[in-house]
Amino acid sequence: MTISHKIISNISVDCVIFGFDFEKLNVLLVERELVDEKSGRILIKDFTLTGYHIFEDEDLDKAAYRILKDLTGFENIYLEQFTVFGKTDRVSNEKDQIWLTYLNQGFSERILTVGYFSLIDSTKVTLSHNERKIHWFPIDEAHNLEWAFDHKQIFMKALEVLRNKVRTEPIAFELLPERFTLTQLQKLYEAIYGTPIDKRNFRKKIVQMPFIVALKVKQKGVPHKPAQLFLFSREVFEKTKKERLGFLF
Amino acid sequence: MTISHKIISNISVDCVIFGFDFEKLNVLLVERELVDEKSGRILIKDFTLTGYHIFEDEDLDKAAYRILKDLTGFENIYLEQFTVFGKTDRVSNEKDQIWLTYLNQGFSERILTVGYFSLIDSTKVTLSHNERKIHWFPIDEAHNLEWAFDHKQIFMKALEVLRNKVRTEPIAFELLPERFTLTQLQKLYEAIYGTPIDKRNFRKKIVQMPFIVALKVKQKGVPHKPAQLFLFSREVFEKTKKERLGFLF
Repeated sequence: MTISHKIISNISVDCVIFGFDFEKLNVLLVERELVDEKSGRILIKDFTLTGYHIFEDEDLDKAAYRILKDLTGFENIYLEQFTVFGKTDRVSNEKDQIWLTYLNQGFSERILTVGYFSLIDSTKVTLSHNERKIHWFPIDEAHNLEWAFDHKQIFMKALEVLRNKVRTEPIAFELLPERFTLTQLQKLYEAIYGTPIDKRNFRKKIVQMPFIVALKVKQKGVPHKPAQLFLFSREVFEKTKKERLGFLF
Repeated sequence: MTISHKIISNISVDCVIFGFDFEKLNVLLVERELVDEKSGRILIKDFTLTGYHIFEDEDLDKAAYRILKDLTGFENIYLEQFTVFGKTDRVSNEKDQIWLTYLNQGFSERILTVGYFSLIDSTKVTLSHNERKIHWFPIDEAHNLEWAFDHKQIFMKALEVLRNKVRTEPIAFELLPERFTLTQLQKLYEAIYGTPIDKRNFRKKIVQMPFIVALKVKQKGVPHKPAQLFLFSREVFEKTKKERLGFLF
């Protein structure tokens, strides 16, 4: 990252990138390591979200896209702002203060960060910047990592927002092929919720959703009994929205 | 407002306070006026949201409550963060720059603001600080006012968030008496949506909601035919949430 712009020292952006690989839900994290030059001892080794400071001459949303691109090479990924984290002590624990001093890039002692999140098909992106030690971690593993700053809290809030959002918005379908099986759909929801879903109940609910359209087509070239294919109709989804939610709820 | 704390010059909070008065939905605005001392000419006369800068030693959420209290006297009002507004030019138009120079309180040329919103029963609060020219404006009128900064945009975003939120969360019931009539409930939704709702359709939907409980009690002491009373059961609402929304939608 070449810095030709001046950063705003007390405002950053952190992106929580969720990736679905058709088996599990993952989160994208950057390894942070600080080794003491004299002793060779590892002083800090933990993980951060993909984040950085915004520039003085840059709109906030643009900064989020720029930072994600700089750190991961990802472009054209939809990011959504979810919460600002503004506690006075969010970067003040000792290891984080050592890290900020070590970087020596003029960051403030107090930094507010704006959280953005995204849900992507992780098989469609390549981690090109791997010298920066960027990795996907399954959600379960991520919970048990050592985190920098308040990034675990930001990650957990993003996960909560994502889980609520897939209940009411059809964002999950963007990760599936245009024609999908109900098993694929169920797997996606199980991955996001992090819990198994009863197959019979799940199918019962699907039948009630007019916007999930059963096709007269089955899978081809699979080693098992081919399953029926379905598609998501955005048109029907929008048309039936009012009825489904009603004026209330 | 006595300033004994140092402000953060580039971060503010703006609160969009919606008030329902049992007839219409209103928004709380502060008059901003700047008169040229020599000529007596009015240089600026427009409206702002209730907002100010956060202090260096203050958590973001606390700042929102402090600012609302300082400007309006309101306490114990639930505020919810909704969006950060971070465009580079959001306070850079001429009249806003004149205003910031006039105040001379060390604000930055670029300010990010965190939007908070609230929905309250406006008949239960008193505007005690009226020397500051704080007023309720009906939503329709507010649209046609002259606004400061990007505050009209913040207000409109808050209104959109509120309208979505009352579809899925039972926040509207907090504004009604414990026992309410369906006409009162309909009026509230009409006020929030800003559009009339068909009475028959509305009642049909209500009947399908197990958490709106019909009581064997009618209104008393009203000049018209007394209407049946209802109550909102949070317990039933929570219990039936999963069924209603399903795993999806």
